[in-house]
Order: sequence, then C-alpha cells, then structure tokens
Amino acid sequence: MLLQPINNIAEICARKGVKNVVISPGSRSAALTLAFARHRGIQTKVIPDERTAGFVGLGMAQYSRQTVALICTSGSAAYNLAPAVVEAFFQEIPLLVFTADRPKEWIHQQDGQTIYQNELYGKHVKKSFELPADYAHPDANWYIERVLNEAINLSQTAPKGPVHINVPIREPFYPLADEKITYDRHVKLVERLAAEPTLATDTWHRLQNEFENANRVLIAVGQLPPSPSLWAILKEFSEEMGVPVLGDIISNVPANETFIRQHDVFLRGKNEVLLTALEPDLLITVGDSFISKNFKLFLRNHAPARHWHIKTTEQLIDTFQTITTQIPVEPTYFFQKMLEDLDYRQFVQNDSDDNGRAAYREAWLGADRQGKRSIYRFLRQETRWNEFALVRTILDNLPENSVLHLANSMPVRYANLLGLSQSAEVFANRGTSGIDGCTSTALGAALMTDKPVFILTGDVAFFYDRNALWHPHIPKNLRTVVFNNAGGNIFRLIDGPSAQPELEQYFETRHSTTARHTAEDAGLDYYSIKEGEDFLTVWQAFIAPDSHAKLLEIFTDPVRNGEVFEAYRKSATA
Amino acid sequence: MLLQPINNIAEICARKGVKNVVISPGSRSAALTLAFARHRGIQTKVIPDERTAGFVGLGMAQYSRQTVALICTSGSAAYNLAPAVVEAFFQEIPLLVFTADRPKEWIHQQDGQTIYQNELYGKHVKKSFELPADYAHPDANWYIERVLNEAINLSQTAPKGPVHINVPIREPFYPLADEKITYDRHVKLVERLAAEPTLATDTWHRLQNEFENANRVLIAVGQLPPSPSLWAILKEFSEEMGVPVLGDIISNVPANETFIRQHDVFLRGKNEVLLTALEPDLLITVGDSFISKNFKLFLRNHAPARHWHIKTTEQLIDTFQTITTQIPVEPTYFFQKMLEDLDYRQFVQNDSDDNGRAAYREAWLGADRQGKRSIYRFLRQETRWNEFALVRTILDNLPENSVLHLANSMPVRYANLLGLSQSAEVFANRGTSGIDGCTSTALGAALMTDKPVFILTGDVAFFYDRNALWHPHIPKNLRTVVFNNAGGNIFRLIDGPSAQPELEQYFETRHSTTARHTAEDAGLDYYSIKEGEDFLTVWQAFIAPDSHAKLLEIFTDPVRNGEVFEAYRKSATA
Repeated sequence: MLLQPINNIAEICARKGVKNVVISPGSRSAALTLAFARHRGIQTKVIPDERTAGFVGLGMAQYSRQTVALICTSGSAAYNLAPAVVEAFFQEIPLLVFTADRPKEWIHQQDGQTIYQNELYGKHVKKSFELPADYAHPDANWYIERVLNEAINLSQTAPKGPVHINVPIREPFYPLADEKITYDRHVKLVERLAAEPTLATDTWHRLQNEFENANRVLIAVGQLPPSPSLWAILKEFSEEMGVPVLGDIISNVPANETFIRQHDVFLRGKNEVLLTALEPDLLITVGDSFISKNFKLFLRNHAPARHWHIKTTEQLIDTFQTITTQIPVEPTYFFQKMLEDLDYRQFVQNDSDDNGRAAYREAWLGADRQGKRSIYRFLRQETRWNEFALVRTILDNLPENSVLHLANSMPVRYANLLGLSQSAEVFANRGTSGIDGCTSTALGAALMTDKPVFILTGDVAFFYDRNALWHPHIPKNLRTVVFNNAGGNIFRLIDGPSAQPELEQYFETRHSTTARHTAEDAGLDYYSIKEGEDFLTVWQAFIAPDSHAKLLEIFTDPVRNGEVFEAYRKSATA
Repeated sequence: MLLQPINNIAEICARKGVKNVVISPGSRSAALTLAFARHRGIQTKVIPDERTAGFVGLGMAQYSRQTVALICTSGSAAYNLAPAVVEAFFQEIPLLVFTADRPKEWIHQQDGQTIYQNELYGKHVKKSFELPADYAHPDANWYIERVLNEAINLSQTAPKGPVHINVPIREPFYPLADEKITYDRHVKLVERLAAEPTLATDTWHRLQNEFENANRVLIAVGQLPPSPSLWAILKEFSEEMGVPVLGDIISNVPANETFIRQHDVFLRGKNEVLLTALEPDLLITVGDSFISKNFKLFLRNHAPARHWHIKTTEQLIDTFQTITTQIPVEPTYFFQKMLEDLDYRQFVQNDSDDNGRAAYREAWLGADRQGKRSIYRFLRQETRWNEFALVRTILDNLPENSVLHLANSMPVRYANLLGLSQSAEVFANRGTSGIDGCTSTALGAALMTDKPVFILTGDVAFFYDRNALWHPHIPKNLRTVVFNNAGGNIFRLIDGPSAQPELEQYFETRHSTTARHTAEDAGLDYYSIKEGEDFLTVWQAFIAPDSHAKLLEIFTDPVRNGEVFEAYRKSATA
C-alpha cells in the first residue's frame, strides 16, 4: 500500500498512451519495474546495459513517434542513459526517463549506489522532476500524479523531447511473495489539447510580399520523419511556384524528379557560374540537421538575403548563419496556406510573370540530374572493391518498404551522397551524431514494425554498441550490415588526419576483430563477404525474411576505400 | 602556432607529473591527442569506447595514486565518460578530464557533435573549467596555464578527485603534414605545497579525555588503499590500548590475528548477549565505504555514544548515522600522536587500569575466530559445486603479491564474507558500486604494475563492460575470472526479488551467452570449468605467468548458488 503512488505511475502512463517501457534491472527500481511489468496495458523490454536500453527506447520512440519510458536503478546507471537522453533532446524524441534514487538524506554518505541524480541531465531534458520519498501527506499523491501528467504532456509537445523523473524509493523494495499489485482506476488524468499555431493575416501578407519580392526561392529540408502530407504540398508548391526543394537523405523527401537530392555532389564543384546561378534570395528551411557539408559551405559563400525557418520551437537555430525569420508553425500548414494565398493573389493580380522562378528551379533540377549522372559514372568506372560502391549497391537493392538506419560516421555520409532510388524510411542519430547507440536505435525501430529494418554501420560504431545485441529482445526483422574496414576509416577519408603519422594508432585505431562472434553469441545468422565473392548472391540470402535476425559483415580495405573516395572527390571538383 | 596553448597543456601535465593519458579518438580533440601523443614525457593509451576509456583511466589512477588524464571528443562522447567520472568522484580518485568542444556559438545549432558540455558532470567533479576558444588576448594564455595548474593541483589535494576541463577548439583541427609540434619549456608552473593538518593541544586534550572516558572503543576501517604505515600504528594502538580494529576486505588491513575481518559473519547472528558485549561507547572510523551490511545494522541497534571520523574532508559523511566529531587529519598522524599522548598520560598518572578494554578487544577477537571457524565449517560440509565455495578456493589460492579487483555485486560480497588468507592489494569500485566498469578498472591497474591482477566478476558485470577488452592495450598480467551463473544471480541471493514471479525475466535477466568469444576476439587465452572437473588443475594453468592475458569462466547453477547461500544464512543465524 505504501507504494500505491508508484503503481499509479504505471496506470497513468498506460492511460495516457505511454505503453512501451524499457527496463534495466535493479533493486532500488524494483517497485517501478513490477508496477509496469504487471500492468496489462504496458509492453516491457528488459535490457541490462543502460546505454543500450536508452538507445533502444530512443529507436522505439523515434520510429513510433510515441513517448517511450525508460526505467533504471540508482547510481551510475542513470549516467549510462545519458548518451541516449542527449540524442533524444537534440533530435526531439519523446522519452520519459525514470531513475530510481535513494532518498535525498543518503546522498554522498558512502553508502551504495548513490549519486546526485536530481537534474542529472542538465540542459539535455525538457524538464526534470523529483518525486517525494514519503507519501504520508495527501499533497504528495496529488504532486506525483500531477507531475506524471505534466511530464508525459511535455514529452509530446513540440519540440518533443526527453523528460526526467527522479524517483526516490525507500526500503522495502519488494512486495511480499503473494502480494497483489493494484492500480487505482481513478488516477488523475490531465489532457493537454493539441493547439495548432497560426499566423495573423497581417503577418501572412508580409510574408507573401517578401516571397514575391524574392526571385530565387529555395526550400531545404533537414532531418524529418516520413511525412507524405508534407511531401505532397511541397511538390505542389515547388511546381506551381517554381521553387526548388532539396533534402538530405535523412529528410525522407522521396527519391523522385521533384526533389533535389544530389546537392552534396554538385555543390562540391568549383564551378562559380553554376554556384552563382543557384544562389537563393530567400531560403526556406524545414526540419532539423543537415548532413551535407557542401550545402553549408555553399550557403556561407552564397548567403540568401532572407532566411525563414519553419519550426514550432522557441530555440533560435541558425545552422547556416543566415536566419532572418523564425516562423513557429507546422510546415504542412505553412506551405498549404502560403500556396493558397499566393495562388489567389496571382489570380486577382492576373499575374503570370514568374520572375524567372521556373528557370531557377530548372537550374537546380538540371544540376541534380548532372550530379546523379556524375556519381554513377564515377562508380561505374571504379571497378575496385570498395565501400562507396558497395553502399550504392545496397541502396539500389534494398527491399521496397524497408526501414533504413544509417550509422555515424561514414555510412550516413556515403548514403547522403548517393541517395535512395526507391522508398524507405530513413533514420539516423543526427541529434549529436554519436556512434554510441546506432545499432541499438535501429533495433528499437525493428521492435515497432514488421518491415525489414536495415542498419548500415562501420566496425567502430558496431563494436562500440555491441551490447545492442546482449538482451533477449532481438527482433527477427533486424538486418545489421557491418562495413569492416579494420578501424575508423573516416579519419582516412577526411582531410587532416590522413596526413598525420598517428593516423592508424590514434585515429583509425586499427584492429582485426570481426563481428562473427558477437553475432553468433546473440543468436544472429552471420553472413560475410569479401573481395572476389558475388555480392548479390549473399545479399539476396541476407535480406530474405527469416525466423531470426541476421548480420552481414562486409570486409574492405581501408587504404583502397581512401583511394576511391579521394578519386571521387577529385573527379567531383574537376 | 595558433594551437600553442593546447600544446602547452601537454607540457604542463608532463612537468607536473600527469604522465598517463587515455585517449579516445575524435577530430574535434585531434589537437589535444597530437599534443599528448608527441610529447616524450607522456604515455598514451588509445581506447575507442569512452565508457571503457574512463574506467581504464580510473583503474590506472586508483592503483598508482597519480592523476591520470582522459581525452575525448565533443558531444555524447563526454557523457560516456560520466560513469567513470562519478565513480572517481565518490572514490576520490584523481582524474583530469579533457573534453574537446565546439566553440560556444555552435551549441544547439543542429550542427554535429555539440551538446551543453560546460559543467556537464554537475556536482560529480571537484571543479569544472572551460578554456577560451580564442587565444588572441595575452590573458587567454595566462588563464589556460593557470587553469591547468589549478586543475592538476586540485585533483591531488584531499579529497582527491576528478576535475573537468572543457576545451573549445576551432578548425582547422590538424597540423600540416610536416608540421612539428613544439612545446614551450617556459610554461607557467605553480606548485601547491602539501600541508599536514594538525590539531591544537587543547583539542588533543579534549579527545584524550573523551577516549579515556570510553570503556569500549572500536576502530573500524572502510575502503582504503594499502598503507603499511597505517597498519603498523593501528596494530600498536590496538594492542596497547585494548581497542579492536575491524576492516572490510576493501580496507586492505592485513589478514592476521590483530585485525577483525569476519564481522560480516558473526554480526549476522541474533545472539543479543554477544552483540551487546560488542557494543562500543566510542567508535573511531577511518577510510571510506563499508561493504558489510551486518556491521551497519549492528551499529544501528547498538549505536555508540560518540563517533569520531578521521578524514581530511569538508564533507559530513555519516554512513552509520552516529557521527559526533569530524577529525580532519591524516589517520596515521592521528593514531601515532594519540598513542604517544595516551602513553604519556598513563605513565604520569601511573594508571594501569585498562577499564576493561582488553576484555572488550578479546570479545571481538574471539567472535572473529568463531566467525572464521563457522564459515569454514559451513563450506567444508557444503560439498556441492557452488560459487561461494569457489570464491573461497580462489582467495585461498591467489598467488602471493597479487592485485585483486572485486566486481560488484556478488564477488565483492562473497569475498568480504570470506576474507583473504594472504597478502593482496584489494580494490573495488565502491564509490557508486556500479557494474559498469569493473573489468576496465582492473585492466587499468594491470597497466600500472607487473604483479598479476585478478578481477573476480559475474557474467552480467562482465558483459556489461566487455568493451574493456576492445582496444590494443590488454596487459599480459590481467587474469579475468568470470562467474557465469547465466544472469544476475544476486537477485536470487538477496531478500525480496526471489519471491517474485518476475525474478528470472526482470531481475536475473537469464541468458546463455558465454565469455569464450569475447575472450577470443580480444586475443585472451580462454579457460573454462564446470562441475565435475578439477578446479585446482585449471587454476594453476590459469594463474601461470604468460605472454598474454587470460580469462577463466566458471559455470555454476544459479539455483544451487541460491540454495547454498540461503543455507549459509540459516546456519549463521542459528
């Protein structure tokens, strides 16, 4: 009975739609564990390494767009969740982080798993709550129930993100052997209605004028989950208004002739005539991170006079150092309304002059076609066994309706250069761009869908996160592709470190470990391939549906990869 | 030239004795990496997983008692060091934590590995510094050099601990291919003299009076590194003053007839006559954490009237809820001076009455002998293959002059019950008692000594930290003993969880993975043993010196371990 408020946490979560919970074992957290484990409305996963548990929960929430709860015991366990929490914060993924704690009076008393847990994640959560350790006063229960409602609502309000609830718990931790856990059906439930932010008519007029005064308008889409309604309106907007729309691979804009996808290729060139022709007057950005460094450099040298960022957030984010206007509304609403109003204006004004917009859009589309051709031409001529070409082969042979996770650092860069040729939902941890949980995140997604989930990762990211495969919840639709180039090959591919005598020892950290044992220990089917073998034969077997997960390890030579990538870069700037 | 202040960080470290550096690869941190890698006075290790890197550095500093530096790149990398940082903080181990960072203006701009790194570790560092990103003003260099001196001095001043230095670095990150790094031989060096805290004569008199008024004085030693000078004076003090001295296994007090070591056994009994006879009037504690829960319970029910804690710290630590006096001086100095003064007093007063102290000491020593007998009698009668007995066999057959690391949670508890029968230096991560870095910490110690270093760990702690073995610096003197009971056996051995239907799934998290593959991947010799095989034959081969590290996996049945431990507990309370 003393722990009734703890049991009610599970009830409130279930009733408010937080139905997936990732639990790491511990005694201090036992009451939370049992409350969630025994609740019929809750699905639990048990994952011992909290770093993995955090990223699996992140992947579940990233894919489902629902709040996922994490539970860990007291002490350094809570810090092991931090890498996933900070990724969730910057990627705006809803997590509810429950850290069991000792009551305050035991902090720094040299007595077990006790650290300063309150506000542990600093600025990397939307809010941090601490529940009371004692429930005797009736306000305590009101407080706990209120906090739970606020925390869940906060996690789901844009910008979404992680919310921390520190939960001090006194002994005894466990119910008696035959004790039943009961859930209070009358827990306090506070809903927070979804309100759609809108702009005043005056504001719309101002924006429309600004738009019409800009001859060259460019829309750029950063990281976003798949959104067919946004794609539809962007396509319409682009075609009617003569506005090119570009998106990195993680923007999920479809691979079709409407959208610019090869900008990381063609913006690398030093063709100033082309680059000047592509310079926008008005840049409109949507979504979050951009991968393409060449796009960033292009905007630095060809800055737009005006830059609108469409995002419902208070934070001033200025990735390109060009922002002039924050427009805190939903992108789909924004483009729909903008298009309608502009259409009407042009109808009223009988204005058929497009101010050269169609030509500007065609310049981008032409450059895109050219970029696509140049990269395929390069890879057709480059017949040596190398990672860049292998990533292309994989992207071209991904089953339809796959989910594709791209690990940091090289896989996401290769894939962004190449682009997809068919539909797949694409994810990557670009909140902080760490290598610490890429496989775990993909696994989390695979727990939430029946589609095949692919993760393309390098050997360093794979081994870093190999506890992704150390728990009993490995879904059969997970397909892990490890590019084993015996170290951190990215350091050879970027400028700077390759010129240092310390390259292999201090940056690549060369090793000869293969993923075979890790895969076998986890009960995965292991496939491997190296130079001279027929890739597609292995690939077809690997992608076939099966009763359990599979791992494909592709061995390449890091020096060769470096040579090919250098040759590509030379060809691109030629 | 722009990075000269960064190069000088390595120079100051080398000159001030910070000669061991653990580096995790990254581009943002490249200037730090190269400055330390190329400095002739510095030894570097390169470890890709920052969680492992942190604990390896912790183990090196824990063993050597010297400040060890850690270097990581920006972003979530810094959070992966946090579990080791918080353990270092509560265990008071000197670390210098360098986190490379983006300049402040790029925080929260959705541009790469950027998080809020300033003050990242909260209250879990002694101090947190942030260096400037720009060095144009001459004060910048003065500031950087001053900060380095303060940080190193702080890490080494009692209470020792981790100090965080956040280092924003602008591009370009790498020197040119043929560029030489130079070190300024005239860097600023500020020494901080070691001052010995002492007490005034009046204070001594007050303490001596208090001591003489207490008939039953007990000294208890918590976690401490080996200190022969302290042991010598404690032995003398104990024998001359009739004061029993007890110490947990991590106190490192020697296993001989002077010191009480079996208190976790005999204080478990419900013999109130004995417990009352052992109740102290004055408790004097030295060192940090205690493992023995029975000792804590004993003091709660038999609280001393007075409790002195001898430790040079400002923090008020009251593990037993009995403290009356903080005595912030060195224990060796304290007992030496106290003994001299009490001797002199007794000589002057011609006082031969010992107030029954000798009898009180004898009561403790008698209980200790009895405890030792009872546990050995129990294990002699218990002939089934089980972990408790196997830990005893290992402790009895440890090579002389070994280093023994005890992982959380069961190994350290078993070992504390049993005690050592010969000399070994004993370490355990009892700052926060996590399972996240036990193997890595032992490996760190093995890098600092030629002695054989043993780590006794369970399967959950081992797999949690298996990246301890994923890097090129595995020392040949490391001997890892994994007790594989197919899950977190501790949950079956403690009260509470074993009665829950969720035991195996939510607490033990049963699995069937063995350590063989992880050991082989890391190039370790793998040994295993199970019921029916001759333990000592395998053990002798395992402990033999060799050209590389070894791992011994001992398979036991978790249900059997539970039965044996339950039988032990019943026998002890009988």
